[in-house]
Amino acid sequence: MIDLFYFVSPNARKILMALEELELAYEIRWTDITRGDQFDPDYLQVNPNGKIPAIVDHDGPGGRPLALFESAAILQYLADKTGRLLPADPGARWEAICWTVWQVANQGPGLGQATHFTTYAPQNGHDDPYARQRFGTEAARVYQILEERLRDRDHIVDEFSIADIASFPWTRLGKGHGISLDDYPAVRDWSDRISERPSAQVTVPDQRSEDAKNFRYTPEQYRLLFGADARPVG
Amino acid sequence: MIDLFYFVSPNARKILMALEELELAYEIRWTDITRGDQFDPDYLQVNPNGKIPAIVDHDGPGGRPLALFESAAILQYLADKTGRLLPADPGARWEAICWTVWQVANQGPGLGQATHFTTYAPQNGHDDPYARQRFGTEAARVYQILEERLRDRDHIVDEFSIADIASFPWTRLGKGHGISLDDYPAVRDWSDRISERPSAQVTVPDQRSEDAKNFRYTPEQYRLLFGADARPVG
Repeated sequence: MIDLFYFVSPNARKILMALEELELAYEIRWTDITRGDQFDPDYLQVNPNGKIPAIVDHDGPGGRPLALFESAAILQYLADKTGRLLPADPGARWEAICWTVWQVANQGPGLGQATHFTTYAPQNGHDDPYARQRFGTEAARVYQILEERLRDRDHIVDEFSIADIASFPWTRLGKGHGISLDDYPAVRDWSDRISERPSAQVTVPDQRSEDAKNFRYTPEQYRLLFGADARPVG
Repeated sequence: MIDLFYFVSPNARKILMALEELELAYEIRWTDITRGDQFDPDYLQVNPNGKIPAIVDHDGPGGRPLALFESAAILQYLADKTGRLLPADPGARWEAICWTVWQVANQGPGLGQATHFTTYAPQNGHDDPYARQRFGTEAARVYQILEERLRDRDHIVDEFSIADIASFPWTRLGKGHGISLDDYPAVRDWSDRISERPSAQVTVPDQRSEDAKNFRYTPEQYRLLFGADARPVG
């Protein structure tokens, strides 16, 4: 059994998808980052970084429980545990790991900041044109990288892998970060194909408030999400 | 022989350190990102993301050349190739991989943006208080995470590993991102210990202009480094 510490987030969705693809037994541990669950001392033992997702595999190496954090590490662990979702060929396997890491070091942070400055900050009283342009440019850059990669490929590497799982969920959230998939047709087609996989259609009951679903936070929620000194106006 | 595509950067320095620690034969391929070398079509074959570092291992799996990009993937590859710089115990090995990924998904992007808004942007005519505060808060957060981790440990995991190599170089650049190591004594002591390793003292001739060494760029250089056209056009 694997505990998946989960909240509505493209990063948590990656792990949900991988667990489904791999048919591993798991249990959702709802971890509400708008009420500070991620800073609970017990949770920080699982993920000292205080973010979601994280997992505890109660049947880890040697049969002992193992806690893992950071989605790109968890995806590699699950692939290694099962011998699936990474190519068997060593060169292609490393290529898939490069693209998986690319996602968490480029696409994720870039689209995360673009979402912040395009949606979260303006909805909560902060308008910041330079940063919005900077991260809008970065968002376009990472989509263009994927577009060129996928122009003549069905998957990011030779076969469906953790590299696809890593990048896919963010590409369903273009509105929040100011991107239309129609401007990136190869990404759109790849994303739409992946969205048809059963693993992409699994749902988790959404326990967020209606305000949170619409990016509207109380000052306390804004502080929990975006840091001690983030001062929401309004 | 391994080609290391290098420029002055904490991310490139990680790979330089790992190659030195592992006593692997390598050759520096100076890749000047202030003149656009990272967008050369030949280089994009090595790193489709158009950034440094990247490597080509001419003695890759099966004796064939293998190109790798993204420092956390390269570090894992080099550790795997040599059976060094990751713990032998599987649980500790995955823990080190979590922290290595943590670095490229949190510390690197956070300190990179803090450096941009604290140093690069102001030196080039952009002042942005909200973003500077946002990434200053994130910089303090990632240092605090490391501080708590290192308070009762000599290394990030049980032994010196790629996790230390990943996080170390950024901790030598606090001035640029507005952090004093004296505020994080456990990080300071760990960073100072690592700085004494021969692998941390290797130097590469710095071919940057004096202006670039002082964060002053021409409009064309700024565009190449930060701008709207800073992406490969396929």
